[in-house]
Amino acid sequence: MRSEIIAVGSEMLTPHRQDTNSLYLTQKLNEIGVSVAFKSIVGDRRRDLLNAIRIALGRVDIVILMGGLGPTEDDLTREAAAEALELSLRRDAQQVAALHARAASWRISMPPNNLKQADVLEGATLLPNPNGSAPGQWLDTVFNGYRKLVLLLPGPPHECRPLFDSECLPRLEEVVPPRAIATRTLKAAMIAESQADKILAPIYTAYADVETTILAHAGDLQLTLICTKPAIEEAQARVDELAGRIEEALEDWLYSSQGDSLEQIVLYYLGLRQATLAVAESCTGGMIAQRITSVPGSSRSFLGGAIVYSDALKSAFAGVPADLLAQHGAVSAEVAKALAHGIRLRTGATIGLGVTGIAGPVGGTEAKPVGLVHIAVSDAQKTESMERTFRGDRRRIREWASQQALDMVRHRLM
Amino acid sequence: MRSEIIAVGSEMLTPHRQDTNSLYLTQKLNEIGVSVAFKSIVGDRRRDLLNAIRIALGRVDIVILMGGLGPTEDDLTREAAAEALELSLRRDAQQVAALHARAASWRISMPPNNLKQADVLEGATLLPNPNGSAPGQWLDTVFNGYRKLVLLLPGPPHECRPLFDSECLPRLEEVVPPRAIATRTLKAAMIAESQADKILAPIYTAYADVETTILAHAGDLQLTLICTKPAIEEAQARVDELAGRIEEALEDWLYSSQGDSLEQIVLYYLGLRQATLAVAESCTGGMIAQRITSVPGSSRSFLGGAIVYSDALKSAFAGVPADLLAQHGAVSAEVAKALAHGIRLRTGATIGLGVTGIAGPVGGTEAKPVGLVHIAVSDAQKTESMERTFRGDRRRIREWASQQALDMVRHRLM
Repeated sequence: MRSEIIAVGSEMLTPHRQDTNSLYLTQKLNEIGVSVAFKSIVGDRRRDLLNAIRIALGRVDIVILMGGLGPTEDDLTREAAAEALELSLRRDAQQVAALHARAASWRISMPPNNLKQADVLEGATLLPNPNGSAPGQWLDTVFNGYRKLVLLLPGPPHECRPLFDSECLPRLEEVVPPRAIATRTLKAAMIAESQADKILAPIYTAYADVETTILAHAGDLQLTLICTKPAIEEAQARVDELAGRIEEALEDWLYSSQGDSLEQIVLYYLGLRQATLAVAESCTGGMIAQRITSVPGSSRSFLGGAIVYSDALKSAFAGVPADLLAQHGAVSAEVAKALAHGIRLRTGATIGLGVTGIAGPVGGTEAKPVGLVHIAVSDAQKTESMERTFRGDRRRIREWASQQALDMVRHRLM
Repeated sequence: MRSEIIAVGSEMLTPHRQDTNSLYLTQKLNEIGVSVAFKSIVGDRRRDLLNAIRIALGRVDIVILMGGLGPTEDDLTREAAAEALELSLRRDAQQVAALHARAASWRISMPPNNLKQADVLEGATLLPNPNGSAPGQWLDTVFNGYRKLVLLLPGPPHECRPLFDSECLPRLEEVVPPRAIATRTLKAAMIAESQADKILAPIYTAYADVETTILAHAGDLQLTLICTKPAIEEAQARVDELAGRIEEALEDWLYSSQGDSLEQIVLYYLGLRQATLAVAESCTGGMIAQRITSVPGSSRSFLGGAIVYSDALKSAFAGVPADLLAQHGAVSAEVAKALAHGIRLRTGATIGLGVTGIAGPVGGTEAKPVGLVHIAVSDAQKTESMERTFRGDRRRIREWASQQALDMVRHRLM
């Protein structure tokens, strides 16, 4: 079955905003054997939206509309879908009550506009949206003699994606002819994309029945293997065989063969070794701690640490001697080591991590250019540092540095 | 004039690849007064491509096709465009010679397939592509009684963008009636989207000639105003007039009328007041520091701080008394205040910020549910805290908390 994903919103026709939900939905659709034949982006004009929906109804089996379900004047997806499908909208009493209850729980009076969020396409099922006020809608209908599935989803990613997973996928699986798709996601750190491809291309090209996709971002490499067969055992066997060969080839670069993030793996190893971690971050400015603490349960192994943007705080929180700073400068192997060592002692953590560098765009010199980063890891046995010079803008440099730092901790724990 | 950008290529219908050229082209088109009414992504199937081109010809004045101009079987844009426009293709002798010369200079023999890159739409002008073998094409034609511009561009960004700038923009400027687009971006913090719309809809709907787009994410509201007029002064005056009325209506929620981020504004105020900031983050785990330090030059006003995930670090780095933690619990107004006060004293910052809460997904109780966050701001005059309960997953709760915290600092500095 072929689908079309229509992202609704004038903001996505500006140079500043891009639809990303469709990538997520495409992955989930492909996994159950639905291909995405078209993606469209249309603004909040009723006529354009109507045109886009009519066209989609004419060329695919499954029409997925994202966005335009909110309470504002601009939110026209319900109305346009009703017009395109030649269906009426009914105001759902239960949904009206839910909207009132929601407003009451927030102790706000509900603007009358909000009630349009209770309008339902004739024959559609409302899909509860725990993360927002606009529910989704699922319509299984016949249009011009053909069966069409029409899905209305909220636009914000944190509403759209969980709602699609919990409410739409199970319904789609009942409709779509069953296909067995096996998939594996392998992750590796700090290997260059070109090097990875040189090592891996001879391996994965020999598996023509497995679709291998390689994505690289700031020192993080993700390989997705997908195989479709009549029987799941057969598909899984092919994927696992290829995964095994790739794992072997990637050696220590590989950190997960199940799609975990690097911070999850670091926390896993910390738990395994009954170790704790503390960080002293200068140029990464909290990015490493933020990544680690994004994982639920991280407090079991992560104590915290210090963001030591100023030299004074490098001394106050991580005990870096002032003369060391004066002698070598804040961006130096010596200071990185002193940060890692100092934060470990101050916090009582098993492992201390120190990062100092020049994230730019200014502040570089010939001897210490923008992108230069020193990272150190300290435990009771030893304190070691690494020097790297990363390319790119401030954001990229900080992302690379945080990735390298987490990877050093992983290696220390392995 | 309205345009549609069609990105051609099956890889852009996978979960792994996204069209980004269209963002670049949109900006350039907007600058000369051409709006992008639709964006479409279509695979390398001839029938689908033909369908997409026909639809675009029926709904916009300018059809821009990107990709599918290469030499392979999959490259079908020329053929599909010819069919849709009911035009023939002619093989351009000069272009054939150029392809031969290019192959010769690379000392490779040219596969016969390559010659299709010399096929030109009847009446079209070839656009030289210094960065690749496939030239672009510019067609100014009449279709079904309407004037249509059809542009064929190569897909790779390093070919598409320079070719568009050098060959297409000057031609478009001659065709497009001179129009000027004025734009403004207003930002507000911690106002609910529905509340904003209730306040703002009566205002912006009165400006039918200004397109207003509202985007909300985790306590951050962005309003984009766009107005197109024959003269830039006129467009700017309308946008500025509406912006003025919105600014007034949004009162203190508004933090920027020029599209700055909240962290930029906080840093701006800190600089203005010659003040410095330090943070003690528990549940946000470095997210606030990370946001602030993402801004170049933040080191002038941001000293750093502590990530106090464990109770021990709350005491060690921010001087929170152990009995206060025992008496009120780590997630309490008292501890938030002690964090803000303590980190200010420890770092010598003008302002201290303390955040403690339950980000979830577990760890909540009836009295202290997941999402409960206490945030405190301390300066030499006073230390005040705020209690909020945010909804959503761990990520959302942390995003809301960091937004609320930065907004409290902004209010203290205003």
